[in-house]
Amino acid sequence: MSTPEPGYKSSTGTGGVKNHVVIDVVLRVVLFATSLVALIVMVTSKQTKLVPVAPGMAISMVANFDQTPAFIYFIVAMSVACLYSIITGALSILALLKLKQGSMKLVFHFVILDTLLLGVLASATGAAGGVAYIGYKGNSHSRWNKVCNVFDSFCGHVLGSLAVSLLPSIALLLLVWLSVFMFSKKIRLN
Amino acid sequence: MSTPEPGYKSSTGTGGVKNHVVIDVVLRVVLFATSLVALIVMVTSKQTKLVPVAPGMAISMVANFDQTPAFIYFIVAMSVACLYSIITGALSILALLKLKQGSMKLVFHFVILDTLLLGVLASATGAAGGVAYIGYKGNSHSRWNKVCNVFDSFCGHVLGSLAVSLLPSIALLLLVWLSVFMFSKKIRLN
Repeated sequence: MSTPEPGYKSSTGTGGVKNHVVIDVVLRVVLFATSLVALIVMVTSKQTKLVPVAPGMAISMVANFDQTPAFIYFIVAMSVACLYSIITGALSILALLKLKQGSMKLVFHFVILDTLLLGVLASATGAAGGVAYIGYKGNSHSRWNKVCNVFDSFCGHVLGSLAVSLLPSIALLLLVWLSVFMFSKKIRLN
Repeated sequence: MSTPEPGYKSSTGTGGVKNHVVIDVVLRVVLFATSLVALIVMVTSKQTKLVPVAPGMAISMVANFDQTPAFIYFIVAMSVACLYSIITGALSILALLKLKQGSMKLVFHFVILDTLLLGVLASATGAAGGVAYIGYKGNSHSRWNKVCNVFDSFCGHVLGSLAVSLLPSIALLLLVWLSVFMFSKKIRLN
């Protein structure tokens, strides 16, 4: 039906392209798994605590991610990354099964979207990280007290989620690098 | 000395590559100018104000970017972007003057570093934005009062710097897209 793209069968052969697509799929699985974990850990961060306000008197206080816009942005970005990794992962697996002519076109579309999502994810991680740092350390200059000494479990969830959330960004960075590497190899092949 | 790279003289010819390099240089100038403006506006944000604490008594309070780690990270990231844009801009101009064989190799190295810097800049803008939002709106749940009603000039600088700081990230995103576009065009040419 379609003629094989020039360069596929030369020095590296189909095996070279296949290896690239396998790494692509693996990285998309990592992207999916890590963004899902970061998402779940952040969503389940809710903590209710009795905070003493006077001798013999305490009020029930709730800490949840939806009280902070930066954490909501973080959740949205991670959800998008999750969904995106499922769609692109499926397309990558299809490309792996067929190794059809359009695969370089697919790589082109992938790298465009990967880069955009990298920017979104990095900014979301940054925003959540910036706010979490204040929650953890406080800021005496603006009189923002730390909240992690009170809401320890909530903070544990947020910090855990943030630590994991670095991985989707790294996976996306590696995906972009991989695509660029595929392009450069293709140019040298011809 | 060196043979011209295959594909340069075909359908789009040297003119096509030249146009790409010109856009590349323009985007790097935009990257330099906007990151420098964001840097200067943030660095000059210092504000000293007399805050009344009791009737007839006021204390002098200072707001400065170096009181918030997120803003320091922002400054460092913008400085790196500034320096990076000077170096890569100069290399791009050299490539424009020579249009030598190595220019595609240069594009390869550029896109690798551009993507990395995009991640760093986006996270820095996110971190500073997350903290600035609290300063602007406060957060009643964690009892963090807004500071922008007191330090209006400081907040004006921070918000201005943040608004401008979106442009370097957009410029880097476009630079990566441009490089990928160059690669894809090159593959189709051969």
